[in-house]
Amino acid sequence: MRLPPSLQSVIDEFARLPAIGRKSAERLAFHLLRRPEADLERFAQAILKLKSGITYCAVCGTLTEQERCEVCRDERRDRSLVCVVADPRNMVQIEATGAYNGTYHILGGLIDTAHGITPDHLNVKRLIERINSGVVKEVVIALNPTFEGETTALYLTNILKNYSIKITRLARGLPSGAEIEYADELTLGEALKHRF
Amino acid sequence: MRLPPSLQSVIDEFARLPAIGRKSAERLAFHLLRRPEADLERFAQAILKLKSGITYCAVCGTLTEQERCEVCRDERRDRSLVCVVADPRNMVQIEATGAYNGTYHILGGLIDTAHGITPDHLNVKRLIERINSGVVKEVVIALNPTFEGETTALYLTNILKNYSIKITRLARGLPSGAEIEYADELTLGEALKHRF
Repeated sequence: MRLPPSLQSVIDEFARLPAIGRKSAERLAFHLLRRPEADLERFAQAILKLKSGITYCAVCGTLTEQERCEVCRDERRDRSLVCVVADPRNMVQIEATGAYNGTYHILGGLIDTAHGITPDHLNVKRLIERINSGVVKEVVIALNPTFEGETTALYLTNILKNYSIKITRLARGLPSGAEIEYADELTLGEALKHRF
Repeated sequence: MRLPPSLQSVIDEFARLPAIGRKSAERLAFHLLRRPEADLERFAQAILKLKSGITYCAVCGTLTEQERCEVCRDERRDRSLVCVVADPRNMVQIEATGAYNGTYHILGGLIDTAHGITPDHLNVKRLIERINSGVVKEVVIALNPTFEGETTALYLTNILKNYSIKITRLARGLPSGAEIEYADELTLGEALKHRF
């Protein structure tokens, strides 16, 4: 059975999004079909305006509406400390912990040669400029503990070790609330190695 | 950290959709942010036009662009057989099996008093009219084997038993590919009861 084309179009659009399969796309489109026209208008307008006014911070490269982001403008932040993250979402997550008072640097991805992402795609040059300015004393590498994250961390470490700064990494160990019984060997091994 | 308002708006819109949590909504919005403007335009237009030209079939109540739907217009379909489904999506699923050559009737939901859906909300009147026209010989009740589906099926059966038509239900039993070891007692009990 062929669905009405306008419905099929919305299903197709949802199905293009990451982690949304055909069934989910259908459910979402059928859901919208039951919403009032005003809701559809608001949704469509939000998407149309998504990129308007968004730019990248001249210092750290995160998303912002101004020349410099909220964190880079904040005089109370410790500029000697730079946390290197893959993307702005990771920055949002670290900010949400409330445990960090330094600044950030957005790499814009992780090295993933299988998907064509080489070191040239990462915003490393600006990081070196920041280090060369002499303010930075410590760089915290906060990348995913995955193959891509580790590769990128290794690449960064090799470059940064030529500068007289401290290079640190996010701690490894058991996640909060985890049960040792279900921890994988690698995690448990790291937890032992970095015991405190 | 406050995200740019245009980004936050799109996150909020996605988070309003069913089965999309805050994290998923963020991932989707950040994904769209990396797409070209043309993709956003196409997505927004699809949503804006979603309801345009969509109407309900005058016979069965499914979604269609014409007065009567594809199935109801098709002369080769068996009009003596009516399959009662909760919504157009279930109709699409049954059509996809290729195992059914009758017509449909869309109830428009399932009785769910906890959420304010009473029998009055269902499109039963039109079903009775179709039966009264004298063409219908069998009604297949194809509703979810859930509390709401069973309640609705019971309600329908009580009404339909006053008419000289056959009332049937979708079979119950083990799903294809299932392992008896993991089947719940109710399903296994049904599979035994309806053994063939």
